Amino acid sequence: METMFTSNVFETEVIKLADTQETIVRGGRDKFPLLPKAFEGIKQIGVIGWGSQGPAQAQNLRDSLEGTDIRVKVGLRDGSSSMASAREAGFTEESGTLGEMWEVIGESDMVILLISDAAQVEHYKRIFETMKEGATLGLSHGFLLGHLESVGESFPDRMNVIGVCPKGMGPSVRRLYVQGKEVNGAGINCSFAVEQDIDGRATDQALGWAIGVGAPYVFKTTLSHEYRSDIFGERGILLGAVHGISEAMYRRFVMEKGMDEKEAFISVVENITGPLSRTISHDGILAVYNNLDDEGKKIFERMYSAAYHPAFDILMEIYDEVSSGNEIRSVVMAGKRFDRYPMGKIDGTRMWKVGEEVRANRSGEPPVNPETAGLYCAVMMAQIDLLIEKGHCLSEVCNESVIEAVDSLNPYMHFKGVAHMVDNCSTTARLGSRKWAPRFDYNIMQQAFVAYDQGVPADENLVESFKKHLVHDVLATVATMRPSVDISLTE
Amino acid sequence: METMFTSNVFETEVIKLADTQETIVRGGRDKFPLLPKAFEGIKQIGVIGWGSQGPAQAQNLRDSLEGTDIRVKVGLRDGSSSMASAREAGFTEESGTLGEMWEVIGESDMVILLISDAAQVEHYKRIFETMKEGATLGLSHGFLLGHLESVGESFPDRMNVIGVCPKGMGPSVRRLYVQGKEVNGAGINCSFAVEQDIDGRATDQALGWAIGVGAPYVFKTTLSHEYRSDIFGERGILLGAVHGISEAMYRRFVMEKGMDEKEAFISVVENITGPLSRTISHDGILAVYNNLDDEGKKIFERMYSAAYHPAFDILMEIYDEVSSGNEIRSVVMAGKRFDRYPMGKIDGTRMWKVGEEVRANRSGEPPVNPETAGLYCAVMMAQIDLLIEKGHCLSEVCNESVIEAVDSLNPYMHFKGVAHMVDNCSTTARLGSRKWAPRFDYNIMQQAFVAYDQGVPADENLVESFKKHLVHDVLATVATMRPSVDISLTE
Repeated sequence: METMFTSNVFETEVIKLADTQETIVRGGRDKFPLLPKAFEGIKQIGVIGWGSQGPAQAQNLRDSLEGTDIRVKVGLRDGSSSMASAREAGFTEESGTLGEMWEVIGESDMVILLISDAAQVEHYKRIFETMKEGATLGLSHGFLLGHLESVGESFPDRMNVIGVCPKGMGPSVRRLYVQGKEVNGAGINCSFAVEQDIDGRATDQALGWAIGVGAPYVFKTTLSHEYRSDIFGERGILLGAVHGISEAMYRRFVMEKGMDEKEAFISVVENITGPLSRTISHDGILAVYNNLDDEGKKIFERMYSAAYHPAFDILMEIYDEVSSGNEIRSVVMAGKRFDRYPMGKIDGTRMWKVGEEVRANRSGEPPVNPETAGLYCAVMMAQIDLLIEKGHCLSEVCNESVIEAVDSLNPYMHFKGVAHMVDNCSTTARLGSRKWAPRFDYNIMQQAFVAYDQGVPADENLVESFKKHLVHDVLATVATMRPSVDISLTE
Repeated sequence: METMFTSNVFETEVIKLADTQETIVRGGRDKFPLLPKAFEGIKQIGVIGWGSQGPAQAQNLRDSLEGTDIRVKVGLRDGSSSMASAREAGFTEESGTLGEMWEVIGESDMVILLISDAAQVEHYKRIFETMKEGATLGLSHGFLLGHLESVGESFPDRMNVIGVCPKGMGPSVRRLYVQGKEVNGAGINCSFAVEQDIDGRATDQALGWAIGVGAPYVFKTTLSHEYRSDIFGERGILLGAVHGISEAMYRRFVMEKGMDEKEAFISVVENITGPLSRTISHDGILAVYNNLDDEGKKIFERMYSAAYHPAFDILMEIYDEVSSGNEIRSVVMAGKRFDRYPMGKIDGTRMWKVGEEVRANRSGEPPVNPETAGLYCAVMMAQIDLLIEKGHCLSEVCNESVIEAVDSLNPYMHFKGVAHMVDNCSTTARLGSRKWAPRFDYNIMQQAFVAYDQGVPADENLVESFKKHLVHDVLATVATMRPSVDISLTE
């Protein structure tokens, strides 16, 4: 089974998730003394790139490896504008921990490639050629595999190829690691994948990397499953859907329900990034429903029923687009148009301006809006069901559909706004959000809201299967391994 | 030059469009006596399918060939629900003008394949095998070529392959033909393409077909250019963009400008499908601007400047998606999901309900709204500029970006609503509209409206190049060949 593995360094554990089993490794600072053994033979880890994951992983790994003789060295393009920021984080030419990208790639025993997807696609041939014989290529995302598949190529067989994929964006990977210094390693869960293992060391290298960046627990996937679920997930509930839901529901409340704009923003966006996320994070998805009063439950059930299928419809399309290679080709083509039209910001529209005001004048927790709750949970459950249907392991399903949302992204959105997040994530995710948010918006407006307003009753079977869904127990199990602190954000 | 050709049957003419030349043939009922010569050796033309183009082309060809010994026979799937409608139009088994699809394909000397794109993709191998040696395959759309390219196949070399592509939807092809009985052949312009010519007769067969369906004028393209411009065009100004523009501008007027909903609908949708379309059809695009007062011109200029680039950005993306094969793969994949989720209607939302009321209570022509005018013209001009940049001949540019909009589609939208059109066109177009309308909407909302409302001044160069654009003269030339009557619609 592809989720089972053994390690020569770390203690593994088999957990039961519904009717499946997965091998996992628990992280924590108490495991850091094992890192030198996991990285045996590796003298230098080169972390290439300083985007979202770069600063987080480079700093976490450096801190975790403090006192060992393994050097973490950041590699950046000559003249990169990120040099200053890397120096600020303590990586310097003088100490031998900062250098020119190609040099670092050529001298490292393990190369963690955290440059943008577009840059990976542009440079992979030279990267493969530049790497040392027998070195390990580390990816935090399966995009490059997806691209290689779409052009009929593969990784050179003279290297280990592994993936360690934090299920949260870079800033939260760093923030939780820093918070976790007091509590034995709060951080962001990671999946790992071994795509090529030429010396039998790939699994332990990947586990060491994951634990070094602070993962509370590590589960196994394949790079192919990873890029499908990851590119899909950020187009879905993690980013694209949450944006589209916000626009559609806000408009509905203002234009059709006569709600004041601030009240509408609070009833939709603040609801999702605030109480809904917190409830799901602490008590699971079903708790959102259970916490409603009878009237609220009825509204939730009807909106859930109206929205589930229109959301599933768009999610199926996204999954097809990703797994066929279309979405990856689109991202690559988009990159070639940026010279002419750089991606515009989305945060200038009226709704986000209202949001700024609302955030500046918050007072207390808003009541949960049952329509918003039904809609948000319907999209989340549809994403869960689709990933299960497509054969993803339950750890991947929960992390890509729930945990990454409520423990990593939504708290940032709550802090700085959904639009800020959409404008500041990876290029692949930004493109995906721009492409799919409006699709969720229109399908929900045209199908879900129309059905709801026509008084279509709740679909009892659908509501029943929500209540009895296996994911609730699975989330409860996985939650026992969640970070021991909530992420706390400050400027 | 690919737009030049000669004919053994019809008189050709070389027209000058800006600094280019194109060979064309003028249609008209006075050319019908030449049809037997154009179709020499063809005893039966099989028209396969009864969707949008099928009923129009089968009836027009039959009427045009009346009195000759060339039979037009409709071929439909056994048990097709369209049988009754074909019989009503006068095609019957008894008279030998209606039959089972595969039989008709096997016995015809020319097979005009008007089944849906998805059905073409599903059945093309069997169709190729079933056709007679040396017969002619006729397409009204390059989709099948696009699909064959995307899977690395090609047409069998034992047949002529031609395209005749009316630049308007089926119902308008029929309606104008019927109206034109009194005035020597009003109809819809057609492009034609000769993809394979094994006997030297392909060009005349295509010209005969185009004139037989009532084309006022016929110009030459390639199937490859055709499918790019056609699939692109319907995602752009013809359908996707006009839908997206409507949603974005209506919402702006209601939510941000405090306009009454009906007034907003009139200021946007009724404006586009009414006075803007009529003005462009009769007097060209620049007339929209020239007819405004000074204040209106200023507003137009600012909105045009704000919207042109965001529209161009999305149009570039559409063109890339179409020409890379992504869009065709998406359509084929979507077809496989319909069993689970058939395409939903879009016409239940509040805006379209308001539109129904507005249409039921029309009184006189509304004044042109200069914001709407600037936005609509910006998107239209961006589409024109992109197609020119991509090397399409000016006839194709004008027909796919202007004439098809204002003379075929918009009048239907004015009559029955934009949503009705989006819900009732070809599957490929419906999918395209659902995919791209929301993208235009969001990009216009996030970029164009934000810039406009921040008071960004008009881009003088852009406005100047609009005023001096070569397309205005080209449209004037092409307009001399337009149908001699406006389309007139009744239930």
